[in-house]
Amino acid sequence: MQDTARSLGTSPRIGVWLVGARGSVATTAVAGVAAIAAGLASATGCVTESPDFAGAGLPDLADLVFGGHDVVDVPLTVRAGELAHAGVLPTPLVAAVRPALEAADAGIRDGSPLPDEPQYTTARRLAADIDDFRTRHGLEQVVVVNVSSTEPLPEPDHAFLALPDLDKALATSTDLLPPSSLYAYAAFHAGCAYVNFTPSAGAALPALEELARLRGVPHAGRDGKTGETLVKSALAPMFTQRALRLRSWSGTNLLGGGDGATLADPEAARSKTESKQRALEETVGHAVEGVVHIDNVPELGEWKTAWDHITFEGFLGVRMTLQFTWQGCDSALAAPLVLDLVRLAALARRRGESGALPALGFFFKDPAASAEHNLTLQYGALTEWAATSAEPARRSEVAR
Amino acid sequence: MQDTARSLGTSPRIGVWLVGARGSVATTAVAGVAAIAAGLASATGCVTESPDFAGAGLPDLADLVFGGHDVVDVPLTVRAGELAHAGVLPTPLVAAVRPALEAADAGIRDGSPLPDEPQYTTARRLAADIDDFRTRHGLEQVVVVNVSSTEPLPEPDHAFLALPDLDKALATSTDLLPPSSLYAYAAFHAGCAYVNFTPSAGAALPALEELARLRGVPHAGRDGKTGETLVKSALAPMFTQRALRLRSWSGTNLLGGGDGATLADPEAARSKTESKQRALEETVGHAVEGVVHIDNVPELGEWKTAWDHITFEGFLGVRMTLQFTWQGCDSALAAPLVLDLVRLAALARRRGESGALPALGFFFKDPAASAEHNLTLQYGALTEWAATSAEPARRSEVAR
Amino acid sequence: MQDTARSLGTSPRIGVWLVGARGSVATTAVAGVAAIAAGLASATGCVTESPDFAGAGLPDLADLVFGGHDVVDVPLTVRAGELAHAGVLPTPLVAAVRPALEAADAGIRDGSPLPDEPQYTTARRLAADIDDFRTRHGLEQVVVVNVSSTEPLPEPDHAFLALPDLDKALATSTDLLPPSSLYAYAAFHAGCAYVNFTPSAGAALPALEELARLRGVPHAGRDGKTGETLVKSALAPMFTQRALRLRSWSGTNLLGGGDGATLADPEAARSKTESKQRALEETVGHAVEGVVHIDNVPELGEWKTAWDHITFEGFLGVRMTLQFTWQGCDSALAAPLVLDLVRLAALARRRGESGALPALGFFFKDPAASAEHNLTLQYGALTEWAATSAEPARRSEVAR
Amino acid sequence: MQDTARSLGTSPRIGVWLVGARGSVATTAVAGVAAIAAGLASATGCVTESPDFAGAGLPDLADLVFGGHDVVDVPLTVRAGELAHAGVLPTPLVAAVRPALEAADAGIRDGSPLPDEPQYTTARRLAADIDDFRTRHGLEQVVVVNVSSTEPLPEPDHAFLALPDLDKALATSTDLLPPSSLYAYAAFHAGCAYVNFTPSAGAALPALEELARLRGVPHAGRDGKTGETLVKSALAPMFTQRALRLRSWSGTNLLGGGDGATLADPEAARSKTESKQRALEETVGHAVEGVVHIDNVPELGEWKTAWDHITFEGFLGVRMTLQFTWQGCDSALAAPLVLDLVRLAALARRRGESGALPALGFFFKDPAASAEHNLTLQYGALTEWAATSAEPARRSEVAR
Repeated sequence: MQDTARSLGTSPRIGVWLVGARGSVATTAVAGVAAIAAGLASATGCVTESPDFAGAGLPDLADLVFGGHDVVDVPLTVRAGELAHAGVLPTPLVAAVRPALEAADAGIRDGSPLPDEPQYTTARRLAADIDDFRTRHGLEQVVVVNVSSTEPLPEPDHAFLALPDLDKALATSTDLLPPSSLYAYAAFHAGCAYVNFTPSAGAALPALEELARLRGVPHAGRDGKTGETLVKSALAPMFTQRALRLRSWSGTNLLGGGDGATLADPEAARSKTESKQRALEETVGHAVEGVVHIDNVPELGEWKTAWDHITFEGFLGVRMTLQFTWQGCDSALAAPLVLDLVRLAALARRRGESGALPALGFFFKDPAASAEHNLTLQYGALTEWAATSAEPARRSEVAR
Repeated sequence: MQDTARSLGTSPRIGVWLVGARGSVATTAVAGVAAIAAGLASATGCVTESPDFAGAGLPDLADLVFGGHDVVDVPLTVRAGELAHAGVLPTPLVAAVRPALEAADAGIRDGSPLPDEPQYTTARRLAADIDDFRTRHGLEQVVVVNVSSTEPLPEPDHAFLALPDLDKALATSTDLLPPSSLYAYAAFHAGCAYVNFTPSAGAALPALEELARLRGVPHAGRDGKTGETLVKSALAPMFTQRALRLRSWSGTNLLGGGDGATLADPEAARSKTESKQRALEETVGHAVEGVVHIDNVPELGEWKTAWDHITFEGFLGVRMTLQFTWQGCDSALAAPLVLDLVRLAALARRRGESGALPALGFFFKDPAASAEHNLTLQYGALTEWAATSAEPARRSEVAR
Repeated sequence: MQDTARSLGTSPRIGVWLVGARGSVATTAVAGVAAIAAGLASATGCVTESPDFAGAGLPDLADLVFGGHDVVDVPLTVRAGELAHAGVLPTPLVAAVRPALEAADAGIRDGSPLPDEPQYTTARRLAADIDDFRTRHGLEQVVVVNVSSTEPLPEPDHAFLALPDLDKALATSTDLLPPSSLYAYAAFHAGCAYVNFTPSAGAALPALEELARLRGVPHAGRDGKTGETLVKSALAPMFTQRALRLRSWSGTNLLGGGDGATLADPEAARSKTESKQRALEETVGHAVEGVVHIDNVPELGEWKTAWDHITFEGFLGVRMTLQFTWQGCDSALAAPLVLDLVRLAALARRRGESGALPALGFFFKDPAASAEHNLTLQYGALTEWAATSAEPARRSEVAR
Repeated sequence: MQDTARSLGTSPRIGVWLVGARGSVATTAVAGVAAIAAGLASATGCVTESPDFAGAGLPDLADLVFGGHDVVDVPLTVRAGELAHAGVLPTPLVAAVRPALEAADAGIRDGSPLPDEPQYTTARRLAADIDDFRTRHGLEQVVVVNVSSTEPLPEPDHAFLALPDLDKALATSTDLLPPSSLYAYAAFHAGCAYVNFTPSAGAALPALEELARLRGVPHAGRDGKTGETLVKSALAPMFTQRALRLRSWSGTNLLGGGDGATLADPEAARSKTESKQRALEETVGHAVEGVVHIDNVPELGEWKTAWDHITFEGFLGVRMTLQFTWQGCDSALAAPLVLDLVRLAALARRRGESGALPALGFFFKDPAASAEHNLTLQYGALTEWAATSAEPARRSEVAR
């Protein structure tokens, strides 16, 4: 019936362009959508499937079409097999969704930069890949999502502050922008919404915000809140609301997989540990003792264990303690949120919103254009924003 | 200066009538108010000291005057010494607040029932003690707070359903109402607000709600949310908001002190474990596997350790786990909330509100007249309710 | 090559008769031996594969032949599929060992008692099944291992005290002995060593010890030490050796699977929680506060989580705390120990030892004929005992 | 009676020379001995008070006399007050042992090096202080114990390898030896046993071993095993004995106090984290993934929390997890062990043993002259060694 609907043009399809399209999160998202569409799995973990979003006019999961860039060439079917072995995907499901994995695989392009190529040229090339994907599949629009490895944060540069300066610098520079930001630049040029699921810089540069507004496209980020920080943002307000004074909050994150290896580099981890601590101090309103560690333990594979140790002061100075241990599978936590963000960013694009979307702060450790970290208040802001779109803009308005 | 203000009649004093006035919570509350008034301690843990309550017209902590009922006669100074030994009160502070403890001690009356006395007569006697306290200290009003031991829940009785039936039954019965409910009955007859900080029945009987409304007095309860359930009410919404399906939630509570011994009796604990589980299932909207244990470990003294083990399902059926360990001091957590509740109930009484106060659900495991358990939403409801009282009723209207 | 060796008579085969032959532990043991023999898996978890046992003359894992009794008829191949789904067995391995599972399946007999059958007659029937198995496969000997569900402990009976009384009572009684003990009786009559891996009574009755000695067969038990108690027996001596006084030890065990359901019955759990506490108090030499819970959480499937909370007193009365959380898979922990016990019991039988084997206390929560619970000392006793068998008795002496 | 005994010369007194005599461990040890001697406290935590050491001829706790070096001058009575506030010493006890603290205070000398003083001269000066202490109190012997802050490990130097080279170098160098080693050098020259309770180099240099043997004095070290590593040495053998393969062992140590600040310097912490990991790998016999963190959390004061996360592999590759959380008070754990070590080192000195004492490895993370880390086996070696001294050498033999 959906196919019929589509052939009749009533259910426009949305492209999902994954930067890091062969990674664990991307593979899980592609496999998951196929499994849900085939009735083999429920959409557990997809926030936008909640009744709170009914009537918001979100695109259907079944209408998502996947493509993307990556620098490696391991086929998605192989990656899915590895994820099944790691307990992320059920083994029988992998066989069932093989055609969907192969279809997505066919839409993945090499994202490697060419030697000595100015970044402006690279961006045009990347944008052309996205354009081609949109045309080939007859998509209403494409949402670009960064799910690649965490990068070191760039050194500050004045060209980041204004679009004309940035354009000029990119015409000659081969390495001014980190990849996540270059993809944002390319996405905006291609008229696409951009979502940064990683702690990398992405669209969080003034010049890119300027470009997004100029092109009339929205963006959201950064750093998907999937584990320790998710629990933090649920727990930290409790202390404030109960007038209990947080004294220390220490955290150790043990993780394997690609992320573990990347984040074992303290420089790359810095963007992540910084955003973890910022959220906490913004919530409670004062500095709190404690260190956050991110350790690579390859043995843990796709799984992550976080231990947090919290001390707080109560009435008459009594010291008390709360500890928690989180054992989660990052890809399984991230993938449905990526799908949520694609649907919500597509909705914002349809509604003509541009620039950073503060209402999507619910999903992020370091929310763009928002200092709210209380999960319940973030959820309230999100559902309220979604509800205002009962009358979505007509599709014709979305044309680039 | 406060004394001057009081002698000028500008700062009316509020009585706090503690049922269980020689217990750990009561002793900590009395010592704490004296310490704060003397500038020896801050009001950490007092929710109503937050800027969110400035301008709500709450009584000052320094204007609280303490009395109460108990069935034991250990002096408060001795109890305070024990609490210092247990690490609940700082040792030097106990010496400093000795006069305040002795003053409160002088206001404590024997609450033991007389043999063969009909409960109606007992209630009149208890009410007279409260009246006498109010008159003697020239108090604007008295708030009655139940901080005594947890009782077994009463068997259902049709006399609980309508006030005339209850009045009639009490004229002859010597044990129809459990003590917590008899105190509510006496408090309402004395024109006092009543707060039930325990899981006992208290005012949660239709006939008592009827009496409260008839007398125009408010009440709040029940079962102060101070530890495991507090964390639960901060964490459980996270799963719902993120569309993660809770599969099991198991809890073990280890505690010493009087509470440990009382709750080791499964019958007395039933009211507590039931309210703990109800909150969870009301939050997530479906049944969840798991058992809650309350164990008496005398060695732990005034301290409580709770371990909770939570399993949940994410995308494509992946199972994940969250555990937390809470190490808290119940008296230090409860005492400031008792002070908050007295101030808020006194405010409601001033404003002429009567019956159950749903806006105070923030403080309770099993909130009267409310099924909201999300801590942040409860906090929002509380501050909103408090803010509506910017124009408090004049004092004269509060006279009984 | 092994087949050649066997055909030459140099490597006698040993029968393993599993009571509860279709359970998780039995299925894992059968699958595991086949996988190891085929070079598909290592013998991780098999204590007797350690160099400390080289030269002790233990039977090879590859020489074990499986049969047994059960009261259900789910084929082992189906059970193995379930265990693969639960993460206990690797999925590819299950296909590879299918022939071994089918072979073991063919050796399983119905262990259900007949209506109104005196237990003596039942025992003869069970013994005949074992005899038949031995003959059919040309086995040197058969070791009977109880891996069935935990039973309630029997009420004391004077017939348990002396063999003649027991024989006499069994001639007419249909339910005097619990199944685990009836199997021990049958095993001894069949001239077989008997291992009780469960907390059920098994051979721990004086009359059965008498029978074992009379028949010249050894036995070992009871209650395999696979999780919380294993950690306990490693940790508890630390407190004693360091002169730190244990004050409380509380434990909560969450488990699913068949065991979870069985042990949710407090009567059946009693034998287990009792043996857990006895070990602790025997180790530290004084009573210790604390309660042990065993909760059924079906969601956990074959996995078990135990949380233990320990308080202890140090110098000048300072109180300190140790907590641990164990997340284990019981079948995977138990299966290799069952194989170890079969090899060791077979060795004892070869050496002509009879009655309880105290040197095997290393494996058990409630070791027969031993009050030693320190894991390291138990290991020392075990390896020393094994080393004394450098000159194993010749096989002819083992004949029944 | 002990006083009488002493005046009769039958109970010789032993000096305890504490390097870091104003630290938390030293203060706790001095206060503790006084409290035990006065019957105000039991000797919980003193290993040598166990019946296993009765008859070994150890000096009495009441016969210990305290002095030492430090570079700060806060009186011990002040330090004891701080420790009472931190919950390490009971408040009433501090008042009771004030005379003992003052007596020890009077025996503390300034250990600061003089500018441009060659280390040989410094050592002679330190040795003279110890000599003077021995003479003044008429002590049988003095045991020097290093309980000062952890130092960075020294760079390798060929002068560490042979005594003549070391003597020669010290004649001119002002900083060749780290303080802990210079104290060992001074102690040996003064004919004293030396105990290194810290991870600093201490006597662990070949030239110092040579000197100890030459002078006929024993030494023991290094790095008292009081917390995480203590638990490790009880748990790690469990995995080996059960043939479970350790895959990762990660640890996070949160601590305040002076130690927290010192160890926040990665260079100083290196000696500690290295000895922690060495023990583990020596126990299990292979490399194990994982990182150990030591974080300074001033809020924790004298208390330390360690969280360890362990993954291991069982039968057929199943992965399982053990976590533990240790909440201990380092000073309360270390002080009684310091007393034990003084008694045992004095015994060894009496018996004429010289050089490193491997039998004392039970107390240390990085035991001198021993690679045994299994706590139970270490305890066995210790008690066996102690038992051999039933016939202690006569005192005259101990004279320097």
